[in-house]
Amino acid sequence: MADADIPKPTTTAPPEDQSVETGEAKGPSKNELKKRAKEAEKARKAQEKAARQAELERQKAEAEVDFASEFYGKQPLNQSQSRPRIPRVQIASLNPNLDGQTVLLRARLQASRQQGNKMTFLNLRQRTDSVQAIVSVTPEKVSKQMVKWAGGLQEESIVLVEGTVAKSPEIIKSASVGDVELHVSKIFLISGLEGRLPFSVEDANRPETEIEATDDVQYKRVGLDTRLNNRVVDLRTQTNQAVFKLQSAIGHLFREYLDSQGFIEIHSPKLQGAATESGASVFKVSYFKGNAYLAQSPQLAKQMCIAADFERVYEIAPVFRAENANTHRHMTEFIGLDLEMAIEEHYHEVMELLDSLFKHIFSGLRDRYKKDIDVVHKQFPADEFKWREGPEGTLRFTFKEAVDLLVEDGVPRETLDDINTENEKRLGRIVKAKYDTDYYIIDKFPMALRPFYTMPDPEDPTLSNSYDFFMRGEEILSGAQRIHDPTFLAEKMREKGVNPEDMSFYTDAFKMGCPPHGGRRRASLFPRDPKRLEP
Amino acid sequence: MADADIPKPTTTAPPEDQSVETGEAKGPSKNELKKRAKEAEKARKAQEKAARQAELERQKAEAEVDFASEFYGKQPLNQSQSRPRIPRVQIASLNPNLDGQTVLLRARLQASRQQGNKMTFLNLRQRTDSVQAIVSVTPEKVSKQMVKWAGGLQEESIVLVEGTVAKSPEIIKSASVGDVELHVSKIFLISGLEGRLPFSVEDANRPETEIEATDDVQYKRVGLDTRLNNRVVDLRTQTNQAVFKLQSAIGHLFREYLDSQGFIEIHSPKLQGAATESGASVFKVSYFKGNAYLAQSPQLAKQMCIAADFERVYEIAPVFRAENANTHRHMTEFIGLDLEMAIEEHYHEVMELLDSLFKHIFSGLRDRYKKDIDVVHKQFPADEFKWREGPEGTLRFTFKEAVDLLVEDGVPRETLDDINTENEKRLGRIVKAKYDTDYYIIDKFPMALRPFYTMPDPEDPTLSNSYDFFMRGEEILSGAQRIHDPTFLAEKMREKGVNPEDMSFYTDAFKMGCPPHGGRRRASLFPRDPKRLEP
Repeated sequence: MADADIPKPTTTAPPEDQSVETGEAKGPSKNELKKRAKEAEKARKAQEKAARQAELERQKAEAEVDFASEFYGKQPLNQSQSRPRIPRVQIASLNPNLDGQTVLLRARLQASRQQGNKMTFLNLRQRTDSVQAIVSVTPEKVSKQMVKWAGGLQEESIVLVEGTVAKSPEIIKSASVGDVELHVSKIFLISGLEGRLPFSVEDANRPETEIEATDDVQYKRVGLDTRLNNRVVDLRTQTNQAVFKLQSAIGHLFREYLDSQGFIEIHSPKLQGAATESGASVFKVSYFKGNAYLAQSPQLAKQMCIAADFERVYEIAPVFRAENANTHRHMTEFIGLDLEMAIEEHYHEVMELLDSLFKHIFSGLRDRYKKDIDVVHKQFPADEFKWREGPEGTLRFTFKEAVDLLVEDGVPRETLDDINTENEKRLGRIVKAKYDTDYYIIDKFPMALRPFYTMPDPEDPTLSNSYDFFMRGEEILSGAQRIHDPTFLAEKMREKGVNPEDMSFYTDAFKMGCPPHGGRRRASLFPRDPKRLEP
Repeated sequence: MADADIPKPTTTAPPEDQSVETGEAKGPSKNELKKRAKEAEKARKAQEKAARQAELERQKAEAEVDFASEFYGKQPLNQSQSRPRIPRVQIASLNPNLDGQTVLLRARLQASRQQGNKMTFLNLRQRTDSVQAIVSVTPEKVSKQMVKWAGGLQEESIVLVEGTVAKSPEIIKSASVGDVELHVSKIFLISGLEGRLPFSVEDANRPETEIEATDDVQYKRVGLDTRLNNRVVDLRTQTNQAVFKLQSAIGHLFREYLDSQGFIEIHSPKLQGAATESGASVFKVSYFKGNAYLAQSPQLAKQMCIAADFERVYEIAPVFRAENANTHRHMTEFIGLDLEMAIEEHYHEVMELLDSLFKHIFSGLRDRYKKDIDVVHKQFPADEFKWREGPEGTLRFTFKEAVDLLVEDGVPRETLDDINTENEKRLGRIVKAKYDTDYYIIDKFPMALRPFYTMPDPEDPTLSNSYDFFMRGEEILSGAQRIHDPTFLAEKMREKGVNPEDMSFYTDAFKMGCPPHGGRRRASLFPRDPKRLEP
């Protein structure tokens, strides 16, 4: 069967009146010339129209190429015209055992490079996986036109490829599946591009070390704004595909552990009648004839669920913070992982459950998502994450002990009423050097650093029953026992300048009886900061 | 050991000057009388102060009652003072095999009723479970005072109870665990109430049938507004505990199925730079010096994830609708369950996956959450939900066939350009009578009823590649193939009066190449409607 015989669009010169060329003895009159020019213009337009028509028909013919009988071309727009039920494979499933088998797959064309007039190399990509495919002239199957057509396909087009799996003569480094290649027998364009790519996915996926190590100008660093303005392309990098798979995995592991511990998942409202935690950084919403506010955390709703006998609840949901400072550093919307549980005897019950939860997430990621972690590490190299898994348990110390460690390391004690970000990082390095762990807990924070609903320490009212969890010197969780007694709560609210009357919907919940309880709370697909609402 | 000897608050009569009673021969002067009255007043005040002091000390003593050595009283505020690690049990775990064993549990006191001066019956509740407990005078253990104290505890207090499990002489109907009862040896108040209960949890949990069947005025119907204004108490009913466990279960089953099918969970932003689906019903947010809008659905973000090669994504997140009509019928915030996936050949791939997803949820709820469904059915009786599980598959018909069924049933054809809510319900009854199923799919909706991004039918442009899923005549899902071609999309946007330039962040996503795809998109803990932002 012949390749699809596609007529080239005819680029015609405008038609001229032949009589002009014959050189008559007497020149035509001015009127005659005008008339001829008009006719010529008319003929030119007619011919242009015919050419446009021909182009449309050519496009239609190209679009109607039938996969069953043709070897290449543009597929008609998929309007679910038919359902041949031909199975399609994933690149990740390709391996040398499939040598000689013919497979069909849909993939993104990361790159296309023609070599001479007989061969085109393609790099095909699906999520974090890629494979090399070769379109090589083969009698009765692959024509020179097809090789050229494939070589002319734009990067990031979506193609449907039929090919035979073949063991690679040597490992192909540019592909994640490097031990096989595909010998293409058919290739169809499912979706092309309109306009230019803002950057290549390959560039966006390049490790910093590779960019810095070369003088070659082609290795462009793709800036953050360029990435975010074209997030759909940026998200296609293998790194981002892995990052968001890992984000999904963290949610899954979080729920998996908590479901096993008798928690239920709740969905608390994000529209609030009053600002919750602090008035300054809350978004105001026009709500019919009045105003509403976006929830800064599900803190109060979670606690109300405890007062409503839910016993153990968690929520994964957006939280909104109107913190400006006109920087991109604070995200205005992010996903919070929150939990709250009734306490039987002691708030350490919550702290220990949280510790087990984190260890479940750490080991789950390591054991089940190694491939995705490796993909991220390719672009962003990092040391292996270390935590204590043995019977000695997670490293814990008190806020006072943490301050002592910093003082020992040379930080003036008088600057340590609070541990700022810089000192948190420093502490991370001290702990790593001294105890060889990236993960630890600091307990017993000063009451002055915690919100009004935090339970004070029973022996020292300047301390609180609260803790932070740290990974590599960064706080990843803040948790505490909450005050469950309405009178005590009202007293502490007033001490922090909050009028209990203004939050009666919350304080009332405790008046109907509430068990002792505690909890905690904390990635972005399309990030939102004070300057970014799109895409 | 003796019971805690709690001094009673002394209700003293105002002291009188004894000399008045002695009846001296000569009556006192007016000044003398004034002076005596003043002194009497002073003495009365001093005595009152002493009484208050005694009461405070009594309360303090009561609060400091030591669980290890006492039998009853108010526990001190739990500030995590100690951690004796005495295991506590769940009511659900109690059964006749535990006969004779002593257990400790924390529970809500649903009811307390003293009988004579030697016995108090308690109904103890945890989530959907309840058990009867008896405080009965027993030498060396349970005093008359203890029986009286327990009898005076307020409904909905939280108590810590130690008791011996005993087989019930007969099934106790007022308790969910009716084959055992607890013989209480110790009882402590963990959290009491401030003020009166707005309604009893027992009343709020009563079936309508029970309320209607009786003339007894004590069976009050608790109104919706009363419930929602006191949602923390309303949520404690066994019905609501089951409802929200089932809501959590639906999310779990939804994810479980989709995770098994290669989906990843995404979290798309709720703050948008522009109104998405239609301008009228969107909430406006003050966003620093400009405005933002709350997402009415994750539709566009999901599709952008497909253009970004995520292939298969789902999201469980709040959606916001500013639909007013000044009624409570429309919720302004609810949880959407959304998914989007790339299509290989035909949009029925998505429809069939959704069908399998629903059947997974139906059978999962029936097989794993029977207890909770039964709890809900106690208050809200309903027929068993029926769906086709056999090889014949789920009942499907086209919009045209659905119209024919309604016409056959007597609905005038000219009123059926769209199927309104009333006719949807009617259709549900027709289908149930004719096919004995509560679950079915209607395919091929008219293009006029669908949004701009819906793919038209390849053969009839007035129809679309879209479908709705129904349960008992109520739409539970709306799904469709989306337009993935940017030129065709822009054309359809203009036809529906949307300017593609205004949504360039969306349309641009398709210009960078996008595979064919399709998807779909729906309880409330603290409901939000145009008139309700609290609690």
